[in-house]
Amino acid sequence: MEYEELTEITDKVLKLLTEKNFREIKVLINDLQPQDSALLLDAMNEKDILPIFRLLSKENAAETFVEMSYDGQELLLNSFTDAELKAVLDEMFLDDTVDIIEEMPANVVKRIIKQSDAETRKQINEILKYPKDSAGTIMTVEYVSLREHWTVKECFDRIRKIALDKETIYNCYVTDTKRKLIGTVTVKDLLLHDYDTEITEFMEREVISAEATDDKETVAQQIDKYDLSALPIVDSENRMVGIVTVDDVIDVIKQETTEDISKMAAVTPSTDTYLEQSVWQIWKNRIPWLLILMISATFTGLIINHFEGELNKLSPLLFACIPMLMDTGGNAGSQASVTVIRGLALDEIRPRNTLKVLWKELRVSVLLAACLAVVCFGKLYLLDGLAFGYNYTWFICLAVSLSMFATVVIAKVVGCMMPMLAKVCKLDPAVVASPFITTIVDALSLIIFCLISMGLLPALS
Amino acid sequence: MEYEELTEITDKVLKLLTEKNFREIKVLINDLQPQDSALLLDAMNEKDILPIFRLLSKENAAETFVEMSYDGQELLLNSFTDAELKAVLDEMFLDDTVDIIEEMPANVVKRIIKQSDAETRKQINEILKYPKDSAGTIMTVEYVSLREHWTVKECFDRIRKIALDKETIYNCYVTDTKRKLIGTVTVKDLLLHDYDTEITEFMEREVISAEATDDKETVAQQIDKYDLSALPIVDSENRMVGIVTVDDVIDVIKQETTEDISKMAAVTPSTDTYLEQSVWQIWKNRIPWLLILMISATFTGLIINHFEGELNKLSPLLFACIPMLMDTGGNAGSQASVTVIRGLALDEIRPRNTLKVLWKELRVSVLLAACLAVVCFGKLYLLDGLAFGYNYTWFICLAVSLSMFATVVIAKVVGCMMPMLAKVCKLDPAVVASPFITTIVDALSLIIFCLISMGLLPALS
Repeated sequence: MEYEELTEITDKVLKLLTEKNFREIKVLINDLQPQDSALLLDAMNEKDILPIFRLLSKENAAETFVEMSYDGQELLLNSFTDAELKAVLDEMFLDDTVDIIEEMPANVVKRIIKQSDAETRKQINEILKYPKDSAGTIMTVEYVSLREHWTVKECFDRIRKIALDKETIYNCYVTDTKRKLIGTVTVKDLLLHDYDTEITEFMEREVISAEATDDKETVAQQIDKYDLSALPIVDSENRMVGIVTVDDVIDVIKQETTEDISKMAAVTPSTDTYLEQSVWQIWKNRIPWLLILMISATFTGLIINHFEGELNKLSPLLFACIPMLMDTGGNAGSQASVTVIRGLALDEIRPRNTLKVLWKELRVSVLLAACLAVVCFGKLYLLDGLAFGYNYTWFICLAVSLSMFATVVIAKVVGCMMPMLAKVCKLDPAVVASPFITTIVDALSLIIFCLISMGLLPALS
Repeated sequence: MEYEELTEITDKVLKLLTEKNFREIKVLINDLQPQDSALLLDAMNEKDILPIFRLLSKENAAETFVEMSYDGQELLLNSFTDAELKAVLDEMFLDDTVDIIEEMPANVVKRIIKQSDAETRKQINEILKYPKDSAGTIMTVEYVSLREHWTVKECFDRIRKIALDKETIYNCYVTDTKRKLIGTVTVKDLLLHDYDTEITEFMEREVISAEATDDKETVAQQIDKYDLSALPIVDSENRMVGIVTVDDVIDVIKQETTEDISKMAAVTPSTDTYLEQSVWQIWKNRIPWLLILMISATFTGLIINHFEGELNKLSPLLFACIPMLMDTGGNAGSQASVTVIRGLALDEIRPRNTLKVLWKELRVSVLLAACLAVVCFGKLYLLDGLAFGYNYTWFICLAVSLSMFATVVIAKVVGCMMPMLAKVCKLDPAVVASPFITTIVDALSLIIFCLISMGLLPALS
């Protein structure tokens, strides 16, 4: 559904609400997909959200609730009666419940736990024990397990009996009496074999699995790489504990990318969305980096102070070129670093490619630098010199252009090598990205500029 | 499989190759997952790649080929005999074939088309007709279609008969005699109903579908949002033409994110990976932006030249603070812009939130700016002043700190509002990102700095 269409329905619902026309609202919102009714409810205020939620049919209610934002869920959880809370919880899959529990304040969590039945409570506690960002925290424990000596018919009987409660039934897991994972069977395999064949005859014994304590990013990469629709999760003794499905993977990939992008922009990543974060949270995620980068600019200040007198004697116009040199160096550097960081994240570039990357960037940078230096010369001489009337002699233009050339080449080399180096040292390439590289390139390009100017100008003029 | 493990196997294969121990190689590589044997082959040189590929079993060969890089595929396609080419093509799904065709040079494409049978050739040509980046180019035409008056048993019979050739069988599409899409049925639904029930009784009639000419990003977002495992693709008359599956979506999401990241770093996006791009291609994708941004730095140059004399009279030390002010402004701006751009891309921030975003950034920026201004004062006075012995009087420190405050607030406001504005104007928020914002913020912060210094210093000293 398009954004505009949903805004229209939201406005309509609000209007119907003032008219107390609940019957009409009920028809409207139960017609929506749960993802859309969730967005609609998220846009409601504290007063209206519960009355509208109550108009959802029982099955729509739980599905909508799962899709809502944490803020909206918290509003509802605080206003639900115990019976309403229980009704919603009973319809939810366990991994969704755990997701919500992890985000809610303690008093809300207490109510949720109280309204769950004993078995669910035990499972919730087990999942909550897995380390942060591990596969255990995103897996679902509702999967289909089969025994190796069952026939296809017995398997189908089993699946028919339990299918309704399972998130996915198409991948089934064959376990022994000790719950150890010994093979997998898909419903497709079952359909392609006769009813009285035992699954031991055709089950896949080479199973790709992951441990519950593995990092969820690794698990997501495995599912993506091998085009799986689900990956079995086992404990340290190869006993089956759950599965991670492909739709969870999309969320993990998006989250990991957001983290990378945040780091590249010098922001500490957060799992909350921007609008959900408080002003203080945002402040906390940004201030350390700005402080570090501001203080590291001390170097550039010292360099300028050191050469200031000499430069001024040569030509005061030289100062005006510093921002252009520094900005172009920064842009050239982040082009290289961001490209390499993304390549590393997608596994398209690997540590063994280091020399290949360096050689490629060297050639690219020389081509770029030559082009920029020529245009820079022309810009200074014609635009700033002739058009705006500043006295940019060709000596100055030459000194600036040569510095531009050196700056771009250095920026590219630093920009591509820092992330590669980080990767080799098992550090996070995204953290060393643009801002730090800019600081280094700034200092280097300033020194080069001052040296070239002081070496070249007195000799030429 | 871990990267190190694969490197080990690759080295082993190369060693066995010099010993001509083909039997051992055959065991080794047929034991790998196709994604891993593809990586292994990609690392081989022109001479070795075909002999090793020939050791793959028939089914492994096609699956491995599909997973290889375009460069590796081209090497093989050029060395295949016609029979080998036909064998690989026969085992491939149509959408994979089309993917490869789109990347290969004309002479290779000709050979592929020649070795395909008439029906496949017709289908390939139809898919190639869809516009660039449309759903039609990523869909597969191998899906299961059913008729509404079939019983569950008839459906299962149909599925059993054709399952082997289909990429996915779990989502089935109910069409009428004119191929129009009228409903969907999952294998789960089929399993949950009696053998003699007609599917018209329980099929889902409210089908989410997309048109073949729709943008593939929109389709990916739909599949992600509604947690679908496949989305039916129809033509303008609602006739079924194919399906897009969830594993294609992961690729689209990764590709779109890479495009966004490239744009934010001022690089024209490319569909080829970094290592696949030629030096000239990389140059072409980077040079326009660097030129535009370098030339737009003319403003900062003009501003400095304009105020240069006055600043120098007040204190030459003021120049040394310009890089720090500009860099901090740039960093503060890109923190805000990148966060907002990512929020917009993930649909977490919407145009209606514009005022909310502005208000949040205003409060965050005042907190950040205050903190930075105080530290900046201390740094200049204590570090540069007392420790390094430059004569930073408290007037100068105050002027710089006030400029710092104003710069950070302006940077944040420009940084968050530019992408929001772009979104409202239906432009691409990522294109207006960091480098452009940096240029604007640079110019503004310089003017503020010069004005504050000239207004404040003569009055105080």
